Order: sequence, then C-alpha cells, then structure tokens
Amino acid sequence: MTYADTPQPPYYAAIFSSAHTGAHENYAEDTETVLELAKNHPGFLGVEATGDDDLSIAVSYWESDDTIRAFKQLAEHLVIQKRGRDTYYRSYKMRIARVERDYGFNA
Amino acid sequence: MTYADTPQPPYYAAIFSSAHTGAHENYAEDTETVLELAKNHPGFLGVEATGDDDLSIAVSYWESDDTIRAFKQLAEHLVIQKRGRDTYYRSYKMRIARVERDYGFNA
Repeated sequence: MTYADTPQPPYYAAIFSSAHTGAHENYAEDTETVLELAKNHPGFLGVEATGDDDLSIAVSYWESDDTIRAFKQLAEHLVIQKRGRDTYYRSYKMRIARVERDYGFNA
Repeated sequence: MTYADTPQPPYYAAIFSSAHTGAHENYAEDTETVLELAKNHPGFLGVEATGDDDLSIAVSYWESDDTIRAFKQLAEHLVIQKRGRDTYYRSYKMRIARVERDYGFNA
C-alpha cells in the first residue's frame, strides 16, 4: 500500500463515495483514463481508492478547489462522468474538503 | 448502501486510510466498540467505510474539528488506538478536513 504523497496541509480532498450497478464493461478502462487525466492535470497530488460494488471510496488530493473544479469540466472527463451516471453508478456522493492537518503511523 | 447523513456544509471529515497486518483477532469487536463510542459522542454525523487488508478507507463526519479532537482523547478510544498501532495496522494516515461543498447522484 502506498498512500498519496500529499504535502504539508493545507490542500484539498475530493471524497467520492459510490455504489455500483454491477455493470463493469468499460469501467476499468474509464477508471484508468480518468486517473491518467488526473495525473496530467495541474494541481493533482494523488489518490487513494478502495472498496467494492456496495461501497467504493476514492479520495483524490488536489492543491486547491479551483483545480478540482477545472478537472471536473474537462471534456473527456465529462463524457466519462455521464457514462458513470448512465451505467456504472446506482448512486454517489462527492464531498470537497480542505485538509487542515494530518498525521500517520508506520509499524 | 447508505451514505452518512451529513448536513449542509460546512462540517468536518476525518479521512482514515490504513493498511492492515492481517491480525484480525478482536479487530471486529474493537471496530464495533469505536463505532458505538462515536455514535454516542457529541458532534458525530456518520461514517462510511470500505476496503480490504491492503487498503481500507473510513471517513467519519463531524460537526467540528474540536469534536474530532475530543473523540480521539476518549480513554476507551486511546486503548483501542494503541492496539491498532501494536497489532492491527502496518501503517495508517489520518487527514482532518473541512467539507466546504458536496453533491450527489441517485439513479
């Protein structure tokens, strides 16, 4: 496991919780495309994602809310977001948050 | 899947990413105890958690950072946190963030 290599706070988190329909055709490819778009987008710091069809959580980290808003509006991303609502997701919830402090542990 | 029933922002998120050792004895009981302590603690709004031994993400939601700090210092919680570092977790990362906006989708 490698955590997102985030800097000293403050930075931003986009917390995406979702429940899947179970329709997985093209899902892995679309997820990979969105990840590549993010990695090439200004302000992207990293992502941690896990879960299953019942509940997945993906938290992506960003330098600012402006960079999150810009990433959401990318044309190629909008197409995949629509496919998400039409096909992949029963529901989702997105929360945009400013990370104020963090700490960690390594055995 | 039921999402945490969070109010209109602002509110706070405690984003807990962890990698497990695989030592699961007492883990389910301790997780249940921490959840019950949280549910009975002032400021707790809800939690969403998913994942596996390689990466779990649990995001708990709170009215304020003060309520998050108070919950961390509960005596019974401190005992379980120590058991986490001694036994359950290879590593973890906690990020405390102020949720500024949110939106969602239901099919």
